[in-house]
Amino acid sequence: MSEGERFLVVSHVDPDGDAIGSTLTVGHLLRLLGKRAVMANASPVPAKYRELPGAEEIVRPQDLFDEPPFERVIAVDVADEDRMGDCRSLVAPDARLLNVDHHRTNTRFGTHHLINPEAAATAEVLYDWIESMGIKWTKPLASCVYTGLLTDTGGFRYSNTTPAVMKRAARLLECGVDAPRIAEQVLETLTIGQLNLLRRALSTLRLSEDRRIAWMWLTLQDFLEAEAGEGDLDGIVNYARNVIGVEVGILFRQLKSGAVKVSLRSRRWVDVSEVAGFFGGGGHARAAGCTVAGARDEVERRVLERVAEALGR
Amino acid sequence: MSEGERFLVVSHVDPDGDAIGSTLTVGHLLRLLGKRAVMANASPVPAKYRELPGAEEIVRPQDLFDEPPFERVIAVDVADEDRMGDCRSLVAPDARLLNVDHHRTNTRFGTHHLINPEAAATAEVLYDWIESMGIKWTKPLASCVYTGLLTDTGGFRYSNTTPAVMKRAARLLECGVDAPRIAEQVLETLTIGQLNLLRRALSTLRLSEDRRIAWMWLTLQDFLEAEAGEGDLDGIVNYARNVIGVEVGILFRQLKSGAVKVSLRSRRWVDVSEVAGFFGGGGHARAAGCTVAGARDEVERRVLERVAEALGR
Repeated sequence: MSEGERFLVVSHVDPDGDAIGSTLTVGHLLRLLGKRAVMANASPVPAKYRELPGAEEIVRPQDLFDEPPFERVIAVDVADEDRMGDCRSLVAPDARLLNVDHHRTNTRFGTHHLINPEAAATAEVLYDWIESMGIKWTKPLASCVYTGLLTDTGGFRYSNTTPAVMKRAARLLECGVDAPRIAEQVLETLTIGQLNLLRRALSTLRLSEDRRIAWMWLTLQDFLEAEAGEGDLDGIVNYARNVIGVEVGILFRQLKSGAVKVSLRSRRWVDVSEVAGFFGGGGHARAAGCTVAGARDEVERRVLERVAEALGR
Repeated sequence: MSEGERFLVVSHVDPDGDAIGSTLTVGHLLRLLGKRAVMANASPVPAKYRELPGAEEIVRPQDLFDEPPFERVIAVDVADEDRMGDCRSLVAPDARLLNVDHHRTNTRFGTHHLINPEAAATAEVLYDWIESMGIKWTKPLASCVYTGLLTDTGGFRYSNTTPAVMKRAARLLECGVDAPRIAEQVLETLTIGQLNLLRRALSTLRLSEDRRIAWMWLTLQDFLEAEAGEGDLDGIVNYARNVIGVEVGILFRQLKSGAVKVSLRSRRWVDVSEVAGFFGGGGHARAAGCTVAGARDEVERRVLERVAEALGR
């Protein structure tokens, strides 16, 4: 086999289900096509994705530093090449790099592109690629694609859950995907750190007088005592937004710098990216964030005032 | 219009998403067909379903006691006529009653049946009925059917999530269903009582030495202080089962009688209905429960021993 047939498959740092699912999908695909595929990620594979078929083969870049750089590379779900992190150094300067993605903001790095900004997930782009090439679905292949669809649509709940996504999911189930098992692994796994942080955050939950704003606090002390890290914060702010009747949920989090990280979520209509923007942050209409310097009480008061304004009071 | 064309549409007490969704679906259908439909439920409509189109028209049986009993009745998602609760008294003794359901245990009460035990939800039975009659989908009709499919499959996560369910969901999305909005209303709404109970339960979370069993406690005091009721317990036991590495999650709950209600959930292979059965309870392989008399510590010890045995230690 010539050196040219050794492929590197990479995705972004801090990989989510679409990043891991798409990495594995391309790995399986290349092997089905008789190629040698090396899968790498700059971050460790999160525990909840470790049971996906092939996940144990995803290596760290440092495991490959002794090997020559790769002449053939497939980057999946990577909007910008910096997002590959340390995996960038594995790519030869003159490499043929296929950029497979669904982000509207993709910088079109690489030599070849397979980018569909209409797709809900990179896994959906890969689904179409596989179908158009007439490749026969195997259960591992279908399971990895399903994982990407499932996670990037928030369990078929976000607005990118199109009829096309549901039809593709139906087809993947026909190929033998164990949907309950994947949902349980990927969406329903909690770390002790997450539970500890959640309990501490819930104990600080407060509601505005009209019950349309709910907010919670996490201090540095909470992180220490909960034996939790950044990764354990996943989804905690949603508990504030999900309180019945609430339109805006907020999580205030003390940073080591002394400033306060503010996460904002809205249910239906308040554009929280405007609130975040006022404080120098950004994001989307329903999910945004900013970092605000100042004492706890003062930051809380200023942010709540601004949210109340956005609510039109 | 003759008296015979006045229909009563009923479902079961403590209605879930399939009960309310199916009630509304049949209500909309009857009106499309030019009939007069009265929708009733023995329990109040839970807040999370009140935004479904037509939900405000679902009345309580007491609102109808002054009217003559109904000669034409459609019961949806009712496995056994007792499950209609006080709505039973609205049914004339010689009524024509159409029983639409998907429960394997349906007692086949009523004069006409439309029962498919292979269906994931009563809403799926109705979907097929609507399609087979060639009725044009309206957005309200599609939204109510979608709600039943969504909730009875646990948000497309349970093992009844078949390719057929996903295809039907795809078709309903094509009819204009606002999937994110329904998911947000129905699956992502929390009461303050739920959050208070969750926080209290999480503060008692303990793990067995091998970390394969996780358990939590709720006392009568917790319910009082959380200003919570039975309905707020929904899903709390899952937090124990979802801890990474855990196979069996348990929620112990003090009852007014002094006994302890034990809810058991397993992740993959332990048959918790056997554990519950040993203590005189029952359920399914992955979700079961029992009530055990005795002091807190003793009940906890006995149940944990039995679960450890089931885990084969």
